[in-house]
This record gives sequence, structure tokens and C-alpha cells, in this order.
Amino acid sequence: MTLHQRAERASYDLAALDALLGDVPVIRDPILIRRRSRDFFWYSPILAEQLKEVSADIVVKPRNEADVVRTVAACAKLRIPVTARAGGTGNYGQAMPLAGGVLLDMTDMTGVIWQKPGSVRVRAGTNILALDQEIRPNGFELRMHPSTKRTATIGGFVAGGSGGVGSVAYGGLREPGNILAARIVTIEEEPRMLELRQDAAQKVNRAYGTTGIITELEMPTAPAWPWIDVVVAFDSFAEAFRAGRDVAHADGVVKKLVTPIAWPIPSQFSALKDACPEGKSILVCMIAEPFLDSFRTILGGRGQETYASPSREEPTETPLYEYAWNHTTLQWLKTDRSVTYLQLLYPQDRLEESVMEMAALFEGEVLPHLEFIRFAGRITCSALPIVRYTTAERLFEIIRMHEERGVMVANPHVYGLEGGSRHKRAEADQLGFKAEVDPMGLLNPGKMESYVPVR
Amino acid sequence: MTLHQRAERASYDLAALDALLGDVPVIRDPILIRRRSRDFFWYSPILAEQLKEVSADIVVKPRNEADVVRTVAACAKLRIPVTARAGGTGNYGQAMPLAGGVLLDMTDMTGVIWQKPGSVRVRAGTNILALDQEIRPNGFELRMHPSTKRTATIGGFVAGGSGGVGSVAYGGLREPGNILAARIVTIEEEPRMLELRQDAAQKVNRAYGTTGIITELEMPTAPAWPWIDVVVAFDSFAEAFRAGRDVAHADGVVKKLVTPIAWPIPSQFSALKDACPEGKSILVCMIAEPFLDSFRTILGGRGQETYASPSREEPTETPLYEYAWNHTTLQWLKTDRSVTYLQLLYPQDRLEESVMEMAALFEGEVLPHLEFIRFAGRITCSALPIVRYTTAERLFEIIRMHEERGVMVANPHVYGLEGGSRHKRAEADQLGFKAEVDPMGLLNPGKMESYVPVR
Repeated sequence: MTLHQRAERASYDLAALDALLGDVPVIRDPILIRRRSRDFFWYSPILAEQLKEVSADIVVKPRNEADVVRTVAACAKLRIPVTARAGGTGNYGQAMPLAGGVLLDMTDMTGVIWQKPGSVRVRAGTNILALDQEIRPNGFELRMHPSTKRTATIGGFVAGGSGGVGSVAYGGLREPGNILAARIVTIEEEPRMLELRQDAAQKVNRAYGTTGIITELEMPTAPAWPWIDVVVAFDSFAEAFRAGRDVAHADGVVKKLVTPIAWPIPSQFSALKDACPEGKSILVCMIAEPFLDSFRTILGGRGQETYASPSREEPTETPLYEYAWNHTTLQWLKTDRSVTYLQLLYPQDRLEESVMEMAALFEGEVLPHLEFIRFAGRITCSALPIVRYTTAERLFEIIRMHEERGVMVANPHVYGLEGGSRHKRAEADQLGFKAEVDPMGLLNPGKMESYVPVR
Repeated sequence: MTLHQRAERASYDLAALDALLGDVPVIRDPILIRRRSRDFFWYSPILAEQLKEVSADIVVKPRNEADVVRTVAACAKLRIPVTARAGGTGNYGQAMPLAGGVLLDMTDMTGVIWQKPGSVRVRAGTNILALDQEIRPNGFELRMHPSTKRTATIGGFVAGGSGGVGSVAYGGLREPGNILAARIVTIEEEPRMLELRQDAAQKVNRAYGTTGIITELEMPTAPAWPWIDVVVAFDSFAEAFRAGRDVAHADGVVKKLVTPIAWPIPSQFSALKDACPEGKSILVCMIAEPFLDSFRTILGGRGQETYASPSREEPTETPLYEYAWNHTTLQWLKTDRSVTYLQLLYPQDRLEESVMEMAALFEGEVLPHLEFIRFAGRITCSALPIVRYTTAERLFEIIRMHEERGVMVANPHVYGLEGGSRHKRAEADQLGFKAEVDPMGLLNPGKMESYVPVR
């Protein structure tokens, strides 16, 4: 049964909403509404079934914060659910409007408000590539971005992501200092605007929009380097892992991406096939150009460098990071939807042992794809392995078997916030905060499952 | 007995040298020669006695590489020892001319040869502060520098140091990528110039000048931040340690120095006394200005911030880093020469346990002063504790007791290279390399004790 059928969805007074919205732009075409209501939840065969009927009733496209305030005030008055959404690049239904109602499309709220060395203030709907292009002339770039940089927004990244390209240097968004501030609108008949700084900003990190509508973000920026995309091929996954580990631990080499990927995953990288020799596992890296020789020194002749070129993000190019993070999975899904994936965090204190144990335990079924990251000040591996899917029971067994062996799993096959977050969770009282900013529980009801409306 | 008395020093044909040197500048005044022959070896009461009579016979001050070549060719022909030296800021006699002969004063060989984003090529005798001032207008700075930045040279740092301010972010000089290249002159009748790149450059790292005369260095540079000097006072050393540990592990906070110092050491910081309340241990930090709020968030109200001000390096100012690394020891020695110090590396995997064990074991005798650093990709603590000196026997017992408990000691109370290096040693075959570049063993004979001349 799908969620939509099960939920006996309430119907909402859309006519009254219409009257209250005034000139705030809306989309009423059911085809468009349905299309905008979807993200990449279909990466999960389980969610693909559960969420396939999920749709909002109307899309509202605020032009500015005043439009957001007007919309959420109306929704609060009429008890209509609101789900903020932007690029729609989530892979486990982060912003699917579970109870219908208003889909608040944030993609027209764009633009840099100010920037200075080390930080940028930006409207939440700003595309991440556009943001980087606006700060790079001043010598800066975002510390990290998802592999969906070219289509995702900064607000969506903070609300739905956890880290990405750059996390090998700076850790995830959950690290203190990686979100400097967030401005949010509360969901009340008289909405308030709150400025959440430092620790407080973690209350909106990876809450999938359930703890307020993010309208602005203040993000730290890093000095921009010219990045070189590099692929190195190895005879075995173990060799690719060890080379990646050595690079990740090399504090003298400035890097943004260190990604070991086991054969046969690279066989699916059709546009990159010259760099992916038959039978070889690969290491995908982004290295700051001045330190490429130092990177090669660390490899010390291990592996075969099959590709090295400046990172390009123009519309006609495919940057190498679009083969990493969850784009690795997408590359396979482009031609074969029989696979899915997991999100893992390996134990830092016995990293190699644990990685090799899992690779052997699920040989041919769970195909290793690691992402070296910093986590709480230490290098470890997160992982987005490709899973050859058979049944939901087997998938959950695989998850259990990982957890029993000390590998943490942020399950991307459940749509609820609490069920899936685990190690990706921000250290903040998001549940308590929701009572303050969304007392009626109108922000995508059902997403933060443990929340009980306070009025 | 002092080394000078023991060594039955050979006498050299200085008249013949004179003839071969031509117009290369020299100093012949015995008072000046003796003064230039000394460094801060007197930090060690043991070395203070052993090395007190050590002196070169003549100081040669090359203006350029041609002068260096002419000098060492002459020395090779006449079998006269050569000891390169620059700022003379070493703390354990790194460049004391054990066998006399020529002291090669490199401080006139200065200047940036070229710089580009991420790297700089510089003559070895360039003062480190001057170098930083020349690259900062382009937005860069050295990744790390010793606390003696204002007086030391870059060549001396590479030849005699191991890391310093900045190593909490980039690790030590021994990390791949932290020395990009070194140009050296060999000690032969027909000297050769060798360019050592990447790994090969480690052959001159911390070899105290025994593996060739460094004339040029290519160093990686880091994006320059405006640094804020911060002091936070705590009721106990354990609290200062834990706060420092949390800051050191925070990858979201850009930092250059994280230094816990136990009371009563701060009682000796007379010029900083307003920031050092009676009885308090302190944490000394340098934090990039845009991330100061994130730093304070991590402290979360722990401790009392007693000082925060932009880092200043002008001649009339004392930058905060001159209370860290081995300047901590110097601050005490300014008024009381009854103390000395050690160089420690704590085990990364039981850092707090080990630090606290040693603090308790030697309470009142070995006063904790830690430096958080990255080492092989992990955060750990090096340490330069103040030792209340009684006897050489007790000092060596203290060293042994540290080693027995898993704390590595780079003994700064021996003048030989091999006896003191330990964890500070570069991973390179320096002994084998010396046979190639100094076959007769003329570079400060006695310093690399295990070397046997090959011709």
C-alpha cells in the first residue's frame, strides 16, 4: 500500500487559501504540481512504492520573504500543511509532501545578500553552482557541496544533506562552524522571523524543512583553489582503499574529494570509460593544483593514473564529482534500476578491518563505494555502496548485519526523519525547537514522526 | 669536560683557505666568530656545559650561490669542516660547529625568487617574517613557522626545526607536501648543485645541515587569514586541555595554534600578565577572524576569555605565538635559568589518559605545556614541558619514565642528530644521502654521529 492510499488524506480549503495568498505566484496545473512534488526517492525501491502517489495540492512560489510570511500565515490559519522544497535532488524523499497541501517552491528566492572573506549571506533558494560562481572571483568557494551542486540549492543542502565534496577537509555540515547562521520563518498565524546563529543554526540542519522555513543562510567560505580531477586505477579495491586512506591522512595535500570505488561500479561510468579500465577499482580525487605532485608522491607509483584534468562545471561538462557521493549510484541507475544503495559510516578506530570485512561479507551484493571524510576531527569513511536489490527483507537484513558489526547506517529506505538519520543527525534539540516554530505541526506532517502538535 | 677540550681539535690551513676564498666576505674577529658560533643550546644545562667552548675558526658570509660553491670547494680541498648556520635560534645546538672550521653564515642569501598561488621559491637565508610579509599581499602565508619567526630563516627552520605555529592544521615539515623542493650544494672539490623535489627534499629536513648546504627552498603556502590571538583561562589544566582538544578537533574552525599551558608557567609571562590570572591554566590560540564566534561556541562558556586581539608582528609588538612552542620555555628562562625543557609526543590513541598520567606523575617537577598538532593525519599533542632541573641523572630518568609509558621523547639534551631526533625524524635515508653529497664528512663533523666518511 502506498502512503497516499493509507493516509486517508484530509482535504484542505484551497479556495480560502487562494484568497489569502493575493498575488503570491502559484502553480495549479496538476501535472506540474505532481512533477514538482517528487524528488529522487525512487533510488529506493521501497520508497518508490510507498511514496509514488504522494503529491501536494498546490505549488506556491514565493518571490521574497514577505510572500513566505503571507503563505505560511494563511496555512497556519487554515491548518494546511506546508512543505518547503527547492532543487528536488533528495534521494530518500526528504521534501516529499507526505500529507499534501502547499509545496513551497523556494527556487525564486535567490541571490547573495553580502559576502566577505570567509563567509557569505545568501537567500536559501540560490543554486549552489551559481553561489560558488559569485564568490569565486573574490577568491573563495563553499567549503563543501553535494554532488548535485549544479542543480541543488544551498537551502536544500542544509535542510536535506549532511556533507559532500569538501567534507574530507572540513567534515560535515554538523561540525561547529560549518553553518554560521540561518534565518527562518515560523509557521504561525503571525509568523516570526528568527535568526539562528552558530549552534542554534544546527536546529535546521538536516531536519528536511520540519523546523521552520529557511529563507537565508550564512555559510563559511574557504579559499578557492584550482582543482584537478584525478582518477587512479588499481588492481584491487583494497589497494584503492589504502591509497585513498594515505591521501586522506596527508595534511600537507589540499584536497576536496577522496573516493575509492570498487569494480564493477566503474563499468557503469560510460562517459568516463577511458579512465576506467576493465576490472579495475578506482580512486577518484580532487586535488588543489599546486599540490598535485605531492599527491603523486604519496601514491608513490601505486596504481595507474588514468585521468587528470582541471575540474569543469560548465553546462556542457560533467565534473568528476558527478561520479562521487550519491551520483555514483545515479550513474548506475541511469541504465539499470535493479540496484539501490545504503548510507554507512565506518568505525574510525578499525577502519580498514571493518571496510574489508563488509566487502568480503557481501561480495557481489553490496559493492563498495567509500567517501573519506573528517568526522569529529578524525578521518574515517562514509560509504554509499551499490546494493543489488532483491527484497525489502534482505535489504533490512543487510542493514542489520552492518549495524551488528559496528558500521552505522543512515537508512535511506524510510521516509521519516528519525528512522533514517542516525550518524547524520545534527546535535540539536530539533524536536523541542519544532514546538516553538511549528506548534501545529504543519511542516510536512508525518516527516518528523515523533512530533506531537502542541496546539 | 667540554667537547672542545675532549676533541683534541685539528688545526686547519686557514691561510690557504683565505687565498682560495678570494673576495668572498669573511669575519675574522674572534669575539664575533665566537658569538656567531653559538645558538640557544644553553636551554639545556647539559649542553650548556658540553658546548660552551665550541667555536668556529672563521665565519664566511656568502653573498650568493657562487660564493657558497667557492667556499665549499676550498673546504673540500683543504679538508676544513663547514657548518651552515643562519638565525642561530636552535635550542639544542643544531648548528654549533663541533669541530670548528668554517661557519657558513647564510643570512645574506635572501629574497623571494618567485611566488605563485600555493607556493614560493626563496633563498635559504631569508627571514621568515620578511618572507611572510612578501607573500601576504598576494593573499598567502607560510603554512607553518617556528615561534622564532621574527628572527629565524626559512633555511634554518627546514634544517633545524620540525614544525610549529600552523602544525595544528598542516602537520609538521615531515608531512608530504610541506617542503616542495630544496636546492643544495654538495661538499666536494667540484661541488654540484642538486634539486631535491618532494620526497627527496626530506633528505635535508631536520638534518641540521649535515646533508648539503641548502641554498634555495620551495615551500607550499596557505591562504592567509586575519588571525586573532586569544587567551582563555581555566581553573585547572585538565579543563584547558579538554577545551584545546575540542578546538583542535573542530574541522569547521580555521586555526593556527592551540596551546594549553599549565599554571604556574603563565606566572612567568610578565608582559601578558593581565591575560594570565593567578592560579589559572591557560589555552593560547590563533583563530581565523571569520570563525572566532564558532570557536567561542565550541568553548560553550568554559573558561574565561582574558585576551583577544589581532595578531601583530611589528617590531614593537610581541605576537602571542611568542608565548607558545619553545618561546614558552624562553619566557621562563628570561628570569630564571634553573629550568629546562623536554620535547614530547603523546600517543594519539589514549591522549587524555597519557597527558593526565604524566601531569600527575611529575607534579611540580615537569610542568605541562602542550601543542596540539596534526601528525600523520591525526590530532595529537606534542609537548614542550618546563622541567625544574636538578641533575642530569634525574633528567634522563624523567625521559626514560616517559618512554616507558608510551610518550615519545626527542631528547634536546644531546647534540648528536641521531640521539635526539626520534619522532621528529624525517622519513628519508639521510645517512645514505650524506655519502653522496658530503663524502668526506666535512659538514659539521660529529653532528651526524653514525656517519663514516667514504673517502
